[in-house]
Amino acid sequence: MNDTPLRVIPLGGLGEIGRNMMALEYGNDIVVIDAGVMFPEEGMLGIDFVIPDITYLVENVDRVKAILITHGHEDHIGALPYVLQELDVPVYASRLTHGLITVKLREHKLLADSRLNVIEPHEPFSIGKLKVEFFRVCHSIPDAMGVAIRTPLGTVIHTGDFKIDHTPVDGKSTDFTSLARIVDEGALLLCSDSTYAEVEGYTLSEQLVGETLDRVIGDADGRVMVATFASLISRMQQVIDAAVKYDRKVTVVGRSMVNNVKMARNMGYLQVPDDVIIPMVEARRLADHNVLILATGAQGEPTSALVRIANGDHQDVEIVEGDTVIISASPIPGNETLVSRTIDNLLRQGAKVLYSRIAMVHVHGHASREELKLMLGLVKPKFFVPIHGEFRHLMAHAAIAESTGVERQNIFVLEDGDVLALEEERGEVVDDVPAGYVYVDGNRRWGTESTVLDERRRLSRDGVVILTVTMDRASGELLKTPELTSRGFVDTLETDEIFEKASDVVQKALEKKARKDAEWGQVEIEVRREVARYLHDETGIRPLILTQIELI
Amino acid sequence: MNDTPLRVIPLGGLGEIGRNMMALEYGNDIVVIDAGVMFPEEGMLGIDFVIPDITYLVENVDRVKAILITHGHEDHIGALPYVLQELDVPVYASRLTHGLITVKLREHKLLADSRLNVIEPHEPFSIGKLKVEFFRVCHSIPDAMGVAIRTPLGTVIHTGDFKIDHTPVDGKSTDFTSLARIVDEGALLLCSDSTYAEVEGYTLSEQLVGETLDRVIGDADGRVMVATFASLISRMQQVIDAAVKYDRKVTVVGRSMVNNVKMARNMGYLQVPDDVIIPMVEARRLADHNVLILATGAQGEPTSALVRIANGDHQDVEIVEGDTVIISASPIPGNETLVSRTIDNLLRQGAKVLYSRIAMVHVHGHASREELKLMLGLVKPKFFVPIHGEFRHLMAHAAIAESTGVERQNIFVLEDGDVLALEEERGEVVDDVPAGYVYVDGNRRWGTESTVLDERRRLSRDGVVILTVTMDRASGELLKTPELTSRGFVDTLETDEIFEKASDVVQKALEKKARKDAEWGQVEIEVRREVARYLHDETGIRPLILTQIELI
Repeated sequence: MNDTPLRVIPLGGLGEIGRNMMALEYGNDIVVIDAGVMFPEEGMLGIDFVIPDITYLVENVDRVKAILITHGHEDHIGALPYVLQELDVPVYASRLTHGLITVKLREHKLLADSRLNVIEPHEPFSIGKLKVEFFRVCHSIPDAMGVAIRTPLGTVIHTGDFKIDHTPVDGKSTDFTSLARIVDEGALLLCSDSTYAEVEGYTLSEQLVGETLDRVIGDADGRVMVATFASLISRMQQVIDAAVKYDRKVTVVGRSMVNNVKMARNMGYLQVPDDVIIPMVEARRLADHNVLILATGAQGEPTSALVRIANGDHQDVEIVEGDTVIISASPIPGNETLVSRTIDNLLRQGAKVLYSRIAMVHVHGHASREELKLMLGLVKPKFFVPIHGEFRHLMAHAAIAESTGVERQNIFVLEDGDVLALEEERGEVVDDVPAGYVYVDGNRRWGTESTVLDERRRLSRDGVVILTVTMDRASGELLKTPELTSRGFVDTLETDEIFEKASDVVQKALEKKARKDAEWGQVEIEVRREVARYLHDETGIRPLILTQIELI
Repeated sequence: MNDTPLRVIPLGGLGEIGRNMMALEYGNDIVVIDAGVMFPEEGMLGIDFVIPDITYLVENVDRVKAILITHGHEDHIGALPYVLQELDVPVYASRLTHGLITVKLREHKLLADSRLNVIEPHEPFSIGKLKVEFFRVCHSIPDAMGVAIRTPLGTVIHTGDFKIDHTPVDGKSTDFTSLARIVDEGALLLCSDSTYAEVEGYTLSEQLVGETLDRVIGDADGRVMVATFASLISRMQQVIDAAVKYDRKVTVVGRSMVNNVKMARNMGYLQVPDDVIIPMVEARRLADHNVLILATGAQGEPTSALVRIANGDHQDVEIVEGDTVIISASPIPGNETLVSRTIDNLLRQGAKVLYSRIAMVHVHGHASREELKLMLGLVKPKFFVPIHGEFRHLMAHAAIAESTGVERQNIFVLEDGDVLALEEERGEVVDDVPAGYVYVDGNRRWGTESTVLDERRRLSRDGVVILTVTMDRASGELLKTPELTSRGFVDTLETDEIFEKASDVVQKALEKKARKDAEWGQVEIEVRREVARYLHDETGIRPLILTQIELI
């Protein structure tokens, strides 16, 4: 009988999309799986991104032995620069993922101090009492892996993000053979990707997208422009293959796309014949039907190449009648409006536009319900923890697990920070650790207890009015007429008149007071209240009012 | 030969969702169809809603003879209080629509001065040289109508929002018989609803939703809660029918739902046996399986009943294990995140939740592609103008029209403000009139040229810093240490130290100047620039900086 429980501690990615991080802890050994960012949701005004709270890891830094990275998407590697500043721990990742992490750490000037290790699937290695072995999975970026961790209590399988594609572009399928070998003696725990646990059936193969791209690019009379994710290297391969087939040269537009094409070619992840990729200046000299433009902006990102082209303000590319634009991606939740606007603007400019709602130009990178059943059926875990997804996705995945035979009391729908302690025969949530959002803005970070976002929301709704009152400290006499100024309150054509009257309101409010004896704090509150009331009566709007009482 | 063209002037609803309004003009007669609001999109910070610009109508007020309203949704009637303040024109609407408009105008204290007329389908009436006849259509609110306008050049058919449902809840189908009679001699122009022009096939019947609701409500062991649109009276009827069948009493929660149930019962649009609707206080005394709660909040509106219940802060209703919640609606574009959060929070509280993505609990109110073809095939118009929808919907609908035989040069994808002049055999866009967004916030309105929204966006991203410098006007001596205060900039724990240093920066910047002779405007600009640079270097954030230089 083994008395040490295995502790499973999600620190991000449960009940939310992104910010993926999980700690597995057995005795003195803690391994961390992934260290991702979350992109700001609606209401997270001005935030650059959100990272996990790693207080627990920092407090137990002596026991944290390694960070294992499943693949190179931002929601799995983006927090590394922040995490590695506080935890000097080796990082293990596949070759491409390693390349992407290297770029990121170099940008943050952290590369020299980091311990990065390239690890290939099926190279087992030990971390304390734990044995780690990665296995290959398909996802919307090459070199994605799941991870198997053998513990004294049994084997843990963490799928990372995955789908099952029997005809992937790079020929590397999710490796069920190895997974079957790994779980041959049974698995203690499966942690599996829940992102598409609501979606019936199977996720279609990349091959179908390739066929559509081939047909559309082959049929187009004019220029073709394809926008996709800069990390979706297999999609770029399909586009480039079709371009070569139909005698088009390829121009790459958008910084991240240019960088990734270059890196993927150098590392051998993208096969491009010589002379196919040409600069824009050369493409301009070719006939339209010999040109294909590969661009960023498939999510409608405001500063991306595609959006600037759609808005007619890109320096090099202007849409002309006869252009075909393929948006080879589907909108990430929250980006729907941005993507729709981009499509509309491309149509306005005269392009023919194909997008995922009306054409088979994208498949996503996550397993649908039948694939999730296949994973559950293969691994046959005693315990199950759905990971990666909003709460309803986790719940849907939990129901799938139960339907495949995992016992209900062995399924744990956790939230970030829950500490699940597993013994050989039973599990229980025994504790919780800090796991709230940590907001990153500029070089600052703050937690959910901060008022910064509340203040920004307030400012964003009704603007700000600044009232300046200058008085003689001794006599309480006004030295100047009270002045008001504003931003984001009402149209500037109207403020002069409104503020003139508001200034009168302030003067009257001050006259009411026995100013000499007044508590200045109290006077300020009352003046602000009077002004707030007047402005609301006058406009129906409640700006944030900041009062500056200058006592001279 | 008739020399007067028919002018078709969309003033809202083309290239966007909502804010529907169109003017038809023949000689001295202008009729307006609908007067709706648009709900603010992402980036329209703090705006209550957006209304059409009616400058053109106001300038031609002598010729504006009537406003025809197709149905009672906000995106078709919501701008009436603003329009009727500037245009004293009779309004024609069906009985239910009239009831909803009456409530709205009473709230705005405009009812006494308005000329509202109830009009039923197939009651032709004349407006100058134009003959108007409404015809019944199905939509997600009772008493919806399309409108036929006979002009000396031919008949114009405007569908309003519509779908084809052969088994609607109220038994009133889209009236093709009458429409066939009206267009018997051919139609000049069809203006048809494009909202779902991207969606293949047919929109399913409300009957299927009724069957799901019946099954789910019948099978539930505990309480059932149904959230839907307050105007979707047929859905409420289905829910109430199922409640009666399975011996549940109904409690209505949420102000707009309570009001609409009451009005719909009084006007005979909702059939409810006596004693079925009971107050919450009585429902609390019943067994869970005898209770059904009908609530607002199907769009995740933050102050709605359902959202407060989901967040655990509703005064009367708390989710308990065994509750079933049905969200009988699909998210309107832009509301996806709010709806998702609501579902997640209901699941966290322990409810079983059914929503449109995973269960057949909603069908929408607009025609899909095959229905649009049916409408085109029946009306066989010479000219076609797709209406209601974002630009890609209009383009998709234009392609459908062409596929059904409308000649390409007779199809006009217009944008708001375009003036399409139709003669008997040809049409041309001849002009454009003001038709931009008019933002309503509180009791203020402003146009797109205003900087208010830009300022709010700026404030929302990085907050605001106010710098106050008090100087002697004559000597230019600082009378006080420069002070800084902020909102929404960085966490307040950090501002003291940052602002102390920033104050030093200001003092140094001022010392550099020959203050006596300085241009104060120039000094202010330079001080602000120095502070901005310091704050950005220190934090990576660029707040809006407001400088108050007080000269005493």
